[in-house]
Order: sequence, then structure tokens, then C-alpha cells
Amino acid sequence: MLEKIDLNKSIDHKEYTDKLETLSKQLSVLQRECLSRQIPIMVVFEGWGASGKGDLINNLIHSLDPRGFKVFSIDIETEEDKKRPYLCRFWNKIPAKGQIAIFDRSWYRRILSDRMDGISDKKKVQNAYDEILNFEDMLIKDGMLIIKFFLHISKHEQKKRLHKLEEHKETAWRVTKADWKHNKNYEEYLAINNEMLEKTDMAEAPWSIVEATDLQYAEIKVLSTVVERMETELTKDVVASRKVDNYHRKLGWIPSEELFHNSTLDSVDLSLSIEKEEYRNKLEVLQEKIAILQNKVYLLQIPIVIVFEGWDAAGKGGTIKRLTECLDPRGYEVIPIAAPNDIEKEHHYMWRFYNKLPKASQIAIYDRSWYGRVLVERVEELIRDEEWKRAYSEINQLEKQLTNAGTIVMKFWLHIDKEEQGKRFKERQENPEKQWKITEEDWRNRAKWDEYEKAVDEMLIRTSTTYAPWTIVEANSKNYARIKLLETVMNVIEKYIENLKK
Amino acid sequence: MLEKIDLNKSIDHKEYTDKLETLSKQLSVLQRECLSRQIPIMVVFEGWGASGKGDLINNLIHSLDPRGFKVFSIDIETEEDKKRPYLCRFWNKIPAKGQIAIFDRSWYRRILSDRMDGISDKKKVQNAYDEILNFEDMLIKDGMLIIKFFLHISKHEQKKRLHKLEEHKETAWRVTKADWKHNKNYEEYLAINNEMLEKTDMAEAPWSIVEATDLQYAEIKVLSTVVERMETELTKDVVASRKVDNYHRKLGWIPSEELFHNSTLDSVDLSLSIEKEEYRNKLEVLQEKIAILQNKVYLLQIPIVIVFEGWDAAGKGGTIKRLTECLDPRGYEVIPIAAPNDIEKEHHYMWRFYNKLPKASQIAIYDRSWYGRVLVERVEELIRDEEWKRAYSEINQLEKQLTNAGTIVMKFWLHIDKEEQGKRFKERQENPEKQWKITEEDWRNRAKWDEYEKAVDEMLIRTSTTYAPWTIVEANSKNYARIKLLETVMNVIEKYIENLKK
Repeated sequence: MLEKIDLNKSIDHKEYTDKLETLSKQLSVLQRECLSRQIPIMVVFEGWGASGKGDLINNLIHSLDPRGFKVFSIDIETEEDKKRPYLCRFWNKIPAKGQIAIFDRSWYRRILSDRMDGISDKKKVQNAYDEILNFEDMLIKDGMLIIKFFLHISKHEQKKRLHKLEEHKETAWRVTKADWKHNKNYEEYLAINNEMLEKTDMAEAPWSIVEATDLQYAEIKVLSTVVERMETELTKDVVASRKVDNYHRKLGWIPSEELFHNSTLDSVDLSLSIEKEEYRNKLEVLQEKIAILQNKVYLLQIPIVIVFEGWDAAGKGGTIKRLTECLDPRGYEVIPIAAPNDIEKEHHYMWRFYNKLPKASQIAIYDRSWYGRVLVERVEELIRDEEWKRAYSEINQLEKQLTNAGTIVMKFWLHIDKEEQGKRFKERQENPEKQWKITEEDWRNRAKWDEYEKAVDEMLIRTSTTYAPWTIVEANSKNYARIKLLETVMNVIEKYIENLKK
Repeated sequence: MLEKIDLNKSIDHKEYTDKLETLSKQLSVLQRECLSRQIPIMVVFEGWGASGKGDLINNLIHSLDPRGFKVFSIDIETEEDKKRPYLCRFWNKIPAKGQIAIFDRSWYRRILSDRMDGISDKKKVQNAYDEILNFEDMLIKDGMLIIKFFLHISKHEQKKRLHKLEEHKETAWRVTKADWKHNKNYEEYLAINNEMLEKTDMAEAPWSIVEATDLQYAEIKVLSTVVERMETELTKDVVASRKVDNYHRKLGWIPSEELFHNSTLDSVDLSLSIEKEEYRNKLEVLQEKIAILQNKVYLLQIPIVIVFEGWDAAGKGGTIKRLTECLDPRGYEVIPIAAPNDIEKEHHYMWRFYNKLPKASQIAIYDRSWYGRVLVERVEELIRDEEWKRAYSEINQLEKQLTNAGTIVMKFWLHIDKEEQGKRFKERQENPEKQWKITEEDWRNRAKWDEYEKAVDEMLIRTSTTYAPWTIVEANSKNYARIKLLETVMNVIEKYIENLKK
């Protein structure tokens, strides 16, 4: 989940102070309301060493009534702790109804730093996952609100911070040998962090990844996430009965439309393009190579799933065409996914997808896919909130089962900006041959660009897994997009076949 | 979960025909109602070979409208199946809303017969569990009702049936080499079955174990379980709004008070007793041996948990006294568990237990325990149904974490019959020295004997695990009970220490 995070996020000082003021006020109101409604809350801070956990916790508690929270700093197990079930010392610390417990590191350290440092028994890591999932699930079912933050910084940024801490006498003691070791083996630790995030990102206790390069940015993100989660929890019952407005009035609460939104897509470089000549040459070479790979894939009986998602008019059709031009038609199938039909609606959402998976040696190319659940169905409010929130793990489960069964799963998000989409829509409308391609619905979707962007953002983070990562394709230049996509397909298949040989 | 099952259960023909008639009518009504309420249902039949799955399925569908159900017989994976995620072929078969799918063997065969026969890759078994739990959870959250039966017969009974099948030409083909192999290695297969039942007994998709020695008994148990589960599902929302009666009236439904109840406790031999002389001798020897073991346990730093549960006046106090008499008081603690206090009520139910676990080398003796959740709190309706249903897995999880951390967990149910309890209550009331021991509450509990028995029964089955099994202590004779209990404590500790040495 960390690959798609843009660590250059920042906020200017004016916006920071404005937002901080609003959020502090909101937090106070919400804390009182959670107390009166007797909702217990746990806030977990995990993340890299020197990523600013302490500062962010300080910032959070400034807005809280001190009679209502406790902060716990979690160290390595003592000898005494070791003689009891691992979770005992966390059960000790769970908050009473209406109280807030804040954790600086938590029950996750067993599968993070302690694992990295070789303190956790390898064999016990699977047990630890089961216990953690069970622990959180038990508490949630009993009414606990669990808010989990992972603070993310780059290897370079961490190194800089560790040096800075060491420079001053007052802070030098905070830097340990382990910190430097973690920094040196950043990539290894990253893999551990990623595995942890993937396995414990639950619908009802999701991870919020905080880009912590700019501390003020991180502060605002943490506060607005806490506000949002408390708000959602408090209005859970009232949402169902459609009395949210009444409830807000009673509370004297004006919910901000959009507390704090940012997108991983902001940093995508859409100026990337390719010369026509180069495009032609590369396309030819790639298509030939992929054709050869298709043969190998057939002989090796490897099923392949390629998912195309992207904005309307991002060029999915044209790119699929360039890909399939070189393929033997007996070995692939393009599967366009539209709204579910009546029979499909009678079943679980994933039913129709499990029924249409490729056989061995087949390449299934999905023009749109199961991701509609967390995109159009979410934005158009065709389903309830808990349904799309649950869908991330349902989708990850499908893709995990596919890769476990030996399938290669590739997912592409074809990205263009709003301006480029406008241009393409206009072209379509003005060109009689292309008019059929543009409908009322496209314009309606375009009007909801910001909501879609938010949904895409969350989708890219929550479903970018080690076994089925997303590739974002910069598609303002159609030719560039086609080459990048075909190159990726080629590389992924080549690498997979190489690994088979090992 | 299978150890506590009494395979001698049977039913007489009159009761059978009466119940069958009632249940058939009820099933028809319920099927129509589930259809109109659009509830999809899956019924799973697993169990030993020749345990009668086919007959029971036939019996079940007789009462159903054939337009509303499908029966699927699940064989080993084909070559084609193998090229897709394992669960694909079950996704194919999930019922549409309002429909019923009945499975003769199911997605469980991968971790049962296929595992036993070496078809399932060992490494993949853990994956398989995760996938199954996830699959059922996804469907349940989408509104599916899942009813799971495990048909249980003894090794001897299975052998008899296989022979009988082989005797007749028409049925001989049904007996395979694998069947005989399973019978020969019954104990090994039993362990696999037990592990599966433990790991997949979910609050919302629990296993119903069917004693299948007497087929008519099994038929009635299956039908009444299906009726009960459908009833519960249909009244789930109305229960919350306390409109069950209205709903039943609308439905023209008279729910039977107790559809079909039976208890694993019925077969406990309460006539067991011991001569006074023998008692005294044995007690002395046992107490000495346990005292020595306590020293070893202390040196080896093994924490021990001993749980005492049982009927009021079953003799918990006296037995605990005989056990502790021989122990060094610095090494044990008796922890009496009463109703939770105000602060405990502010936390999750398990909080106070996680906070009071023994340190290493300590013996914690619980006079009543966390099992109050599924006994008194269930019967007295102090909590909601879903809370005690959820508690079985919460309790199993606690005990699993304890044993994973190296704790020995022993659980004793002190069993007396209603008559014996009456006698003891009377004695207490008539003896001025013992009057304090008997309260109004005891009499109130006694009045609910049948309800408690049902709760005890379910507790014994759902929380008898491989890592923390229950021992039922026949306690009509106090002396017999004390010896059996001390012997068990001695044996369990000795065996544990022996295994440590290996």
C-alpha cells in the first residue's frame, strides 16, 4: 500500500493555521459527543523511526480534554510480559466506554520492528496476525472505534532526520543503533511494513497512511482523519434512518464538505510523451515480443488477467486494440464489464467475476472490472457505505486467490487530467464518426470529477498489493500510454517466466 | 468438538413420525417466507463416509418446493478446476436470492478427505482455511444464510456400514478403497475433522454436529436445525424491534418452544462412586504427587489455568479445597468470578480476564470463569443473542493464546443431576451452618434447569478444543468427583512435562 504514496505532499502555512483552528474546535465537540454516547476509541500510531509520531500525538492531544484520554508508549516486551499471551498488555490498556487511548507504537510492533530486529519468532508471525485481526474484530463488535495511522517517510528523509537528531545533545540519545539499521535496510523493512498493511487493512479498522515529510501536512491529515472517523461513527445509526441533519442540528455541528482531500494522482507527470517515429518503432518491437511471450505463456499454461480502468476517454479502447493486435485470438478474450444484469444482481457482487475467470493459458483482458464497486457504485451511491468499504478486501481476496493459483494479475489505471478529458469529449462530439462514443452519462461523470478522484485515490492505495500492484499509466499522450502499457505487460510476463525457472 | 458427542442418541418411531410431520409443515412455510424475503440459503453436509449424507439430503428436500432448491454433489477437482482459484467452482453454485443450494460435500473437502488422501498440498491447507473463512464471511455479510452439518459416527459403526454396503451388488460400488483407508485410520482422520470444526465454527455460520448412528434421530435433528436457523434469520430484524409476535401472527406461525433438544450430559454415568477407604488412600497419594508436581511446574516456569464450572451445589468449593490443600500458597491463587462490577462493565467482556491471568509458575484456579458469558448471561438474557454466540470464539481465542504462550489450560464441568441438586439444596437449608450457602437465586437458577442444560451442552461442544478440552466430572458422589479431578490434574501436568522433555 505504500508504493502509491506521494511523499512530496505539503501544505502552506496559511492553510495550515486555518484548518488547525477549525479541526481543533470540531475535535472538542466530537470528543464530548463520543463521551456522552459512550463510544470507546483507540488511536494507533505506527510508522518509520523519526517519522514524527511523538509530535503528531502531541498535536492531537492539544485539542482533547485531558480527562478523556491516555497516551501509551509501547516498548519491547519485558520478561514478565513474555510469560503471558502477547496481547495481555494491550488488553490492560483498552479504554473504558467514552474514553480515548492513544498508542505510540502498539500491538503491531511484534510484526514490525520486533520482527525486523529478529526479536519476534518467525514461526509466530502468522499467529500474531491471527491474534491481531481477532483482537480488533472483537473490540469493534463490542463498539470500539479503532483509528490506525501509519506515518510514511522516504529513506533519504529518514536519514536526514536521524543525522539532525544526533547533532544535538538533547536529542542524540533518541537515535539508536536499530534506527540506523532500519534506515540502512529500508527496502527490507518496507516489505515488512507493506505486508503488515495489506494483511491488517480491515473495512472497519482501515489504515490511514500519512505522508509525513511535511509535518504540518501530516498534522492536518491526522486531525481531519480523526474528525472524519468520529463523525462517521457517531452518525452510523442516524445515517441509516436518514436523520443526519437533525442529529447535526442537535449537535450544533456544521460538517465541512471536504475536510482534507489529496490525491496520489496529483503527482503523476502527465506531460510525458513520445515522438511519433519512436512510437512506431517501439510499438512494432513490443508487439512482436508479446506475441512470442503469448506462445510461451500458452505452453506453460499460465493464466493472465489484465485489468483496464481509467477516466472516460482516457484511451482504454485504443490501448486494448494495440495490445490485442499482436495476440493469437484463440488465446485471449476481451471482457467488457458493464452494470450487472438482473440475474447478476440476484447474487453476491463478486459472483459474476468468479464465474468469468480465464482458464489456464488464456489471457483475460477486462475493459473495466470488479473495481466498479469502489468507483461508479461508490460515487453514484448505488450501494451502502459499508458495502464499498468491505469491497477493498473482497477484491484483494479475489486477486490473492488468483495469484495463489498461479495467475498473473496486472492492473492499469489510465490517467488523464480534466482538461484533456474536456478536449477529447469535445472532439468526439464534433466528429460524426465518434459521436456514438460520448453520452449524457459521460458528462454527468465528468461533473463529479472530484468525487471520482477521491474514490480512485483510495482504490489505488487500498488495492495496491504485493501480489497485484497497480500501474498508473500517464495517458495525456495516447502514444506514450500505449508504449508504457505494452512495455509493462512484456516485463511482467518475462519476469514471471524467469522466476518459474528458478 | 467431536469428543463430547454422544453417539448413542436415538429416537422412538412414534416421536419420529410426529416430529417429522410438524417439521415438514414448518419447513414449507419457512421456505416460502425466505423466498418472499429474498434470503439465499446454503446447506452444507459434511461428515464421515457412509454416515448417511445422501439419505439426510433426500429427507430434507422432501419437505421443500423443488422449484426453490438445487442439490450439488462435490467431487475431486477436475484438471480444468485446478487451473482456477479453488473456490471458483463454488462461486458458480451459490444460490440466487430466495433460493436454496444443498451441498453433498463442499468447499471443505479440500481440508478433509482431500487432505487425508494427500491430494491437498500440505502447504496450501492454511491458505485454504483463510479462503474458506473469507468466502463464508463475504456471503454472510451479503445476506446469505449458511447452515453446516457434520455427520458423526463411530469407527465401529462406519465399519459395519461399509461391510453392509459391500454385501449387496447394488451398493457395493459405493465403497471405495479410500473409504476403507479412512476407516482404518479413523483416529488420524478424526484429528483432521476436529481441527476443521474448531477453525471454522463461526458465530454466524456455526457447525451443527449430527449424531448419525440412528438415522431417524439424525433426520429429525437436521430438519429441526434447518427450521431453527431459518426462523432465527427471519426474525433477526424483528427481534431487535420486539415485534416477533406480530411477525409470527402475520406468518400464521406457531413456533415450537423447543424443537428438538438433547444433551451430551444425558449419557454421563452419575452412579459412579468410590469407597471411603479407597478415597482416603487415593486422596493422600494424589495430593502428595501434585505437591511435587507444583515444584516442578515452578522450576519450569509453567503457568497453569484450572477452570471450575458446574451446577450450583455440585461441589466446586469442596473440590477446590482438596486441590489447594496440598499446594504451596505462594504458588497458586483462587480467583472467584462473580458478576462484573461497574468498571468491568465499561470494558469489553474479556477485559477483566485478560487482566487477571497467571504469571509464569503460578496456578490460577478459577471458581467460575469467562464461561459465565455463555451460561448465566445467556440464560438470564443479560446480553443479546449475537453476543453469546460470538463468545464461543472469543473464549476459544483466549484459551488458544494462553496455550500458545505455554500455559496449561484445564477445564472441569462438575456434573450432578437435578434430583441430587434438590437433595443438597434441602440439606443446606436445614443445616444452620450451611444456610448461608443457599440463596433465592439458587432456586431461581434451578427452575431454569432445562435452559441451563441446553447452554451447558452447547458450551461443552463449541469450546472443547484440541488445545483446551473439557473434562466432565461425575459429581453425584463428591468423593468420586474429587479423585477424578485430582487424577486428571496430575495426569495432564505430568504429560505436559514429559512432552517438554521431548
